[in-house]
Amino acid sequence: MLRRDYEGQVCSIARTLEVVGDRWTLLVIRDIVLGLRRFDELLTSLGAASNVLTDRLNRLVAEGILERVRYSERPERFEYQLTEKGRELGICLIALMQWGDRHISDEPPRIARRPGDGSPITARLVAGDGSIVPAGEVELVPGPGLRS
Amino acid sequence: MLRRDYEGQVCSIARTLEVVGDRWTLLVIRDIVLGLRRFDELLTSLGAASNVLTDRLNRLVAEGILERVRYSERPERFEYQLTEKGRELGICLIALMQWGDRHISDEPPRIARRPGDGSPITARLVAGDGSIVPAGEVELVPGPGLRS
Repeated sequence: MLRRDYEGQVCSIARTLEVVGDRWTLLVIRDIVLGLRRFDELLTSLGAASNVLTDRLNRLVAEGILERVRYSERPERFEYQLTEKGRELGICLIALMQWGDRHISDEPPRIARRPGDGSPITARLVAGDGSIVPAGEVELVPGPGLRS
Repeated sequence: MLRRDYEGQVCSIARTLEVVGDRWTLLVIRDIVLGLRRFDELLTSLGAASNVLTDRLNRLVAEGILERVRYSERPERFEYQLTEKGRELGICLIALMQWGDRHISDEPPRIARRPGDGSPITARLVAGDGSIVPAGEVELVPGPGLRS
């Protein structure tokens, strides 16, 4: 999605940013999470240029993050839906949103909640025993995928 | 940090991306989480151009995400440390890393764990009662900060 400026980086953060770290891509995904599905709806919401949106949608489909689904035969019309891989980006989106709520926005423009009971949802770091770990208390250590 | 192409967006995700959504910025923060502190160390690790790194570091200091701390008087030397605001981005980083581990990397290049007991740490969505919510089961509803 980006030019592969950090191709040499053996890092799942860099790799994820290569796929979704483009300035518009996460906002396209956000809009689809928010319920927009059709090209014209996304175009209006984002205020992006039409060719920019087309490019991002095509790449997201190619990456298996979105799928293009026909919802009308005559005239033939398509909408975009998140795949399971795309839905899993929800944790990243909520984490980014929560940081902005806390440090930039005066009041939260949107609230994340669980459908059904409306319980507020936050992105947290969770240890193996289910306890919450503060963001400052994580260490990153080399894993099996790190070339020496 | 980015040109404010989505300035009109009343959205904490867009606002966070304006601050940290630049291609290099999250990788600078990642390297500081990984223990790098000095300009030359960051330059070597990232393979970014020197002026690019200088620009990103200055902006991160201006945003209150990093602080520049003198560690030697003669010669005068500085290192970069995360502020509390910066450390809170750790949740976003771990969420991005975890998605890349799952969908892109064959094996995880790095493991996030709790110091002390080494318990593996994951970014999760957590409801008010402490239960884990799947990423596909979150709804975003208008909050008090959303202008009509």
